[in-house]
Amino acid sequence: MSRLWDKGAPLDERVLRYTAGEDHKLDERLVAYDIRASVAHAEMLHAQQLLSAADLDAIRSGLNALAAEHERGEWHIELADEDGQTALERRLSERIGTAGARIHLGRSRNDQVLTAVRLYLRDAIATLAAGATQASHALDELAEREHGTALPGYTHLQQAMPSTVALWAGGFAAELRDDALGLGQVLRRVDLSPLGSAAGYGTPGLPVDREATRAALGFASVHAPVTAVQLSRGKAESQLLFEITLLLQDLGRFAADVLLFATSEFGFVSLGEAFTTGSSIMPQKRNPDVFELIRGRTATAQGCLLEALAVCAKLPSGYHRDLQLLKFPLFRGIDLALETLAIVPPAVASLTFHPERIHLDDSIHAAEEANRLVVSEGIPFREAYRRIAARLKR
Amino acid sequence: MSRLWDKGAPLDERVLRYTAGEDHKLDERLVAYDIRASVAHAEMLHAQQLLSAADLDAIRSGLNALAAEHERGEWHIELADEDGQTALERRLSERIGTAGARIHLGRSRNDQVLTAVRLYLRDAIATLAAGATQASHALDELAEREHGTALPGYTHLQQAMPSTVALWAGGFAAELRDDALGLGQVLRRVDLSPLGSAAGYGTPGLPVDREATRAALGFASVHAPVTAVQLSRGKAESQLLFEITLLLQDLGRFAADVLLFATSEFGFVSLGEAFTTGSSIMPQKRNPDVFELIRGRTATAQGCLLEALAVCAKLPSGYHRDLQLLKFPLFRGIDLALETLAIVPPAVASLTFHPERIHLDDSIHAAEEANRLVVSEGIPFREAYRRIAARLKR
Amino acid sequence: MSRLWDKGAPLDERVLRYTAGEDHKLDERLVAYDIRASVAHAEMLHAQQLLSAADLDAIRSGLNALAAEHERGEWHIELADEDGQTALERRLSERIGTAGARIHLGRSRNDQVLTAVRLYLRDAIATLAAGATQASHALDELAEREHGTALPGYTHLQQAMPSTVALWAGGFAAELRDDALGLGQVLRRVDLSPLGSAAGYGTPGLPVDREATRAALGFASVHAPVTAVQLSRGKAESQLLFEITLLLQDLGRFAADVLLFATSEFGFVSLGEAFTTGSSIMPQKRNPDVFELIRGRTATAQGCLLEALAVCAKLPSGYHRDLQLLKFPLFRGIDLALETLAIVPPAVASLTFHPERIHLDDSIHAAEEANRLVVSEGIPFREAYRRIAARLKR
Amino acid sequence: MSRLWDKGAPLDERVLRYTAGEDHKLDERLVAYDIRASVAHAEMLHAQQLLSAADLDAIRSGLNALAAEHERGEWHIELADEDGQTALERRLSERIGTAGARIHLGRSRNDQVLTAVRLYLRDAIATLAAGATQASHALDELAEREHGTALPGYTHLQQAMPSTVALWAGGFAAELRDDALGLGQVLRRVDLSPLGSAAGYGTPGLPVDREATRAALGFASVHAPVTAVQLSRGKAESQLLFEITLLLQDLGRFAADVLLFATSEFGFVSLGEAFTTGSSIMPQKRNPDVFELIRGRTATAQGCLLEALAVCAKLPSGYHRDLQLLKFPLFRGIDLALETLAIVPPAVASLTFHPERIHLDDSIHAAEEANRLVVSEGIPFREAYRRIAARLKR
Repeated sequence: MSRLWDKGAPLDERVLRYTAGEDHKLDERLVAYDIRASVAHAEMLHAQQLLSAADLDAIRSGLNALAAEHERGEWHIELADEDGQTALERRLSERIGTAGARIHLGRSRNDQVLTAVRLYLRDAIATLAAGATQASHALDELAEREHGTALPGYTHLQQAMPSTVALWAGGFAAELRDDALGLGQVLRRVDLSPLGSAAGYGTPGLPVDREATRAALGFASVHAPVTAVQLSRGKAESQLLFEITLLLQDLGRFAADVLLFATSEFGFVSLGEAFTTGSSIMPQKRNPDVFELIRGRTATAQGCLLEALAVCAKLPSGYHRDLQLLKFPLFRGIDLALETLAIVPPAVASLTFHPERIHLDDSIHAAEEANRLVVSEGIPFREAYRRIAARLKR
Repeated sequence: MSRLWDKGAPLDERVLRYTAGEDHKLDERLVAYDIRASVAHAEMLHAQQLLSAADLDAIRSGLNALAAEHERGEWHIELADEDGQTALERRLSERIGTAGARIHLGRSRNDQVLTAVRLYLRDAIATLAAGATQASHALDELAEREHGTALPGYTHLQQAMPSTVALWAGGFAAELRDDALGLGQVLRRVDLSPLGSAAGYGTPGLPVDREATRAALGFASVHAPVTAVQLSRGKAESQLLFEITLLLQDLGRFAADVLLFATSEFGFVSLGEAFTTGSSIMPQKRNPDVFELIRGRTATAQGCLLEALAVCAKLPSGYHRDLQLLKFPLFRGIDLALETLAIVPPAVASLTFHPERIHLDDSIHAAEEANRLVVSEGIPFREAYRRIAARLKR
Repeated sequence: MSRLWDKGAPLDERVLRYTAGEDHKLDERLVAYDIRASVAHAEMLHAQQLLSAADLDAIRSGLNALAAEHERGEWHIELADEDGQTALERRLSERIGTAGARIHLGRSRNDQVLTAVRLYLRDAIATLAAGATQASHALDELAEREHGTALPGYTHLQQAMPSTVALWAGGFAAELRDDALGLGQVLRRVDLSPLGSAAGYGTPGLPVDREATRAALGFASVHAPVTAVQLSRGKAESQLLFEITLLLQDLGRFAADVLLFATSEFGFVSLGEAFTTGSSIMPQKRNPDVFELIRGRTATAQGCLLEALAVCAKLPSGYHRDLQLLKFPLFRGIDLALETLAIVPPAVASLTFHPERIHLDDSIHAAEEANRLVVSEGIPFREAYRRIAARLKR
Repeated sequence: MSRLWDKGAPLDERVLRYTAGEDHKLDERLVAYDIRASVAHAEMLHAQQLLSAADLDAIRSGLNALAAEHERGEWHIELADEDGQTALERRLSERIGTAGARIHLGRSRNDQVLTAVRLYLRDAIATLAAGATQASHALDELAEREHGTALPGYTHLQQAMPSTVALWAGGFAAELRDDALGLGQVLRRVDLSPLGSAAGYGTPGLPVDREATRAALGFASVHAPVTAVQLSRGKAESQLLFEITLLLQDLGRFAADVLLFATSEFGFVSLGEAFTTGSSIMPQKRNPDVFELIRGRTATAQGCLLEALAVCAKLPSGYHRDLQLLKFPLFRGIDLALETLAIVPPAVASLTFHPERIHLDDSIHAAEEANRLVVSEGIPFREAYRRIAARLKR
């Protein structure tokens, strides 16, 4: 609440802070991708005879130096730069002089930032999918470790039919693999090269080669027509956040089971001590905070997804500054998913089941008995069902 | 607010109404799919020697007769049946006697209803994707029809660079084709056979052949392990609603443009009279209600998506009755998307552009001029930009 | 998916169906309120000498007859009427001739429908608040009935400190009373008379008396200026849906507790048989469907709230047809809340606690012991905490 | 994506980071409130003879010193402290020795943090409501400044009836005042003292005086029973975020109007130069970014609201760590609302209307003419409507 600009800062600074406030920090993670795309763009300009070999060299080495320095934390995007794109052009020009003033020919911040975001998303998707797969492996290992442990199978939270820890963990493992595939599907909307669409209406008067930058950056195809590029804003982002939501909902349901099985009433499982925390007033408590937070991240993912969808909803076509607001929920959703995926394997590995405390109700075999009655006596299933039900009532 | 059960109805009826209230109506559209899956299930039972040839014949002809009668509107699921699955088994047994009591061997309502839903979703997805493609064709035709019509290209709702009606419509057409592909991707989560998972823990004591029913119903693979089936509830449904949301957001943004272009201040386009409505007090008004409702459906889609996600969130594993609540937002989302897709092609066809009223600001060519200056004089882009900017200020 | 208009219906009918599809059914519940407001409007017109005494009498008796017939189910709004307002004016004119053509002077459908909605909402709010209060009474009775029954108090789902059924039920009862008060707060946004704002810009040329209709309909004040009326669309509706969401979240959390306590592992409580349902394959099962559906309605409420908010978001000022889409989530949210509130008291009354199965862990008194140690020995709390913790470790 | 703990950090640190990651930063703004509540708590302990006068003095001066140092930025909550409550107790104990170990008697972090949050929310609500009121004043001043400027009144984005800038701004001003009142209503859920509820089950064995701390901190009443306190978590937070959403939706709709009126096609209004930004490639552009970001914040508010609701949904009763996740959307929603409110008055003040470019269609007076026809000729409104409509067609 104590924002500087609340307190009499000059108007220009207040406007700058309102418009660029989050962007200059968020763009940090895009710098390396932006530089890679800028080099590809400069090379294309040179091939199209729009940039001399000397200028290309200056730009390339200038950008590569900036990339290395940024990775070493030697510079950051400043608020006064508004955004990462401006910061880069300014620093490049300071470093290499006039040649830097040639880099922005044939592109706009609109296609530039989208290119960087999509290059970043390719990496993020791969990392997320790998994380989901690793989490499924942790569950496979649990299934193996506890392969002999029986577990009630529940419907409506009531004991229903016999199951095992292996089947329980195996179901979640299968769904996490499904999530990894779902994340991979997002690539279809990411793998389109925006470069050359400029502000959304192409680059009249310039022989820009969209295919060349596409190939250099390894995109599957050129995003066309140019008007589609800005219209597509938010779609890949939302799909990724949607798949993150499904992933976190699967992990959240797994956590809900663990929290249930870890109650003293169920007593099926213990959590590793590192995954519990104490209470400030109850000396006896060991609380399963990690699994509660995994469950709670369901809400974060839903919030990020909705925010991304709502940013784009109902906007007329063409770029609008609102679209800049996509980055916050996108990065937040990705980060929290990655943090959660990183904690799941050790958390799963820390689970210890207590077979001696896992009791299956006698009646849990009722459906199986009805099945066997059908096979042995040839009676209709409905009749077998009624016979077993009558016997259980007694 | 005047629900019967509010007013002293006996308890059983009130509970029935609360639990089955929506289901018996919603299940109507699943009846044909349920029957198809039931026939496949019965054939598998026969092949596994769990059902005699005579009983199979009775079941098959009984179910086919019920299907034909249902399609002709001769019967409906009744509230007292609770749901479509119960209604079907009851009617079959009334019609063919004991053989009907054999149909439910080796399956549960849990896998039965999910099979019907997935068969239905295959059709729904195909219809939706075809509708999105048709809408894109309507836009292609508009682009063709108006191929010579110039249009300002906007960023920030300000005239930015020259564009055309063809480019404008072409951008939306491309995104609708993207939506059609996105809808198609949902098939991956739909194309898994649930049959044989029963209540979520398989069919102990019975030699059920999951592969046989999968093949008969044309699913890509068997959904395994059995515990994954109920865990997956809501994921395909949510993905379809997510893709519907993207589709309706694209259509909603198109509508937002049309509504803008149809203001008297813009005056770029007129709507067909059939697509406007009158005012109750302003005799002069012709209102663009259809496009407003298309835009408004963005909200419906978001609501349905969120409802589906929230139904599943945080539930422990295994089936819960909450999951039944997925059907309402799913069917509502599909229906409203189809209704909207059906109205888009004639609405687009009714648009008439008025080139004589479309004025491009002189300064709209500034970027192009800067580009040409770079090419002709070899100066850096940033310098060309400043020169043009200075000239425009005068 | 088999909508008539999909299959070659003439364009006009398809447009009518798309634009009026839901409205003519939804408006049914507004008819009585619309008639009441119309009578007040006609009386005002007469007082302002814009309507003769004879015409007023004709209108009043015509409307009252229509109200009575509608209540008896003798007529319904037809699709061809588009909406309830048009249906009413048409039927009135058919019945009383020319006088009917005078009723719409000085109003628009925009203020007419909003007046009917607000009159309806006053009743709906009162009914909802009464329902929440009744549900809290059911919990009070449970607290009384089980006043001697101990219950573990949980944090993190782990036994934490001693509690009782009375404290548990009392907490929920208090929050339901809070919800009733929250619902009552919505009145502030409902209790403003829209009449006389017409299409949103008043009634130039007519001496309309906004205060007279306000007084006749019992609104707290006139909604002014006229431009605020349409801007406010969706705010009262969303606030009601927000309070319904809080209410259903409270009930959903209560249901989550009951479902947990009713597991065979906890075994604290049994549900009345009328509130459980059977399984299609497991003869032994009694499932707590009612409480699961109460929990599931959390999702419905969230969906309705979001849909209502999203309908209004970002719209330019003035009436838009999108706003008509508010009615569906509004009525659905109200109906499901009322249905849920109606089932809660008998469901709560059906709960039977089993004190003999409720075990409090020994360590549950640890905090109390630390407290007593502080009082008896005067040592700091942190030291007492450590001593008890050390003792528990042994 | 480059989180330290991803890269082989020891398990304990990874768990700490996952569980405390956001909290230690978020709690910064609560420190002053926490200290105020802690002093009140210590004074109550002394009055109840649970704390000596000397210890109270030590605690009070220790806390006040910590408060002053924190305000000067001399210390921050560290990750290792997990949260602000732990940080405070640790620092107090380091400073004043044993007496610090006495402060936590009779309270838990659960009631402690909730007390601090509610004290903070009282201030936040007042600041937000004042901000909404100031924004309404800015609109009042605009109405005054432009009191003679005519404006078309729109419905369906079509010119409908004559209006004025004053009426247009006045409608928004009225709704902002409504939002200020709505924000004020949230106090009802905030103004309840949690202290003494401890972990949610009171303080057995201790004569804690809940009324004393309530009075000292100025809460309207004691939150009772103790079990209601944790159940209420998220309700006040969500209501505040809901009202923030309504506020930002009102501002977003105002921004949508300004963006429309500022197009070159409408041309009604110019924005102050400080409130526009340039383009990276189009030298002529002045873009209305500030108003676009105001509109875009609608999405942020919706996302925060949904996240807060979803955190609490379906949780069993009693405290869960998930609830800690409420703080992020709460603080983010408040901060962005305050930043937006701060920019609105100068942005509104910068608007210049251009009466010479504002044209009202001739037909905009049609409803008024129909009204006058009714008054002058005594014909029914419906007939006057038809006559004017016929005349307009010619």
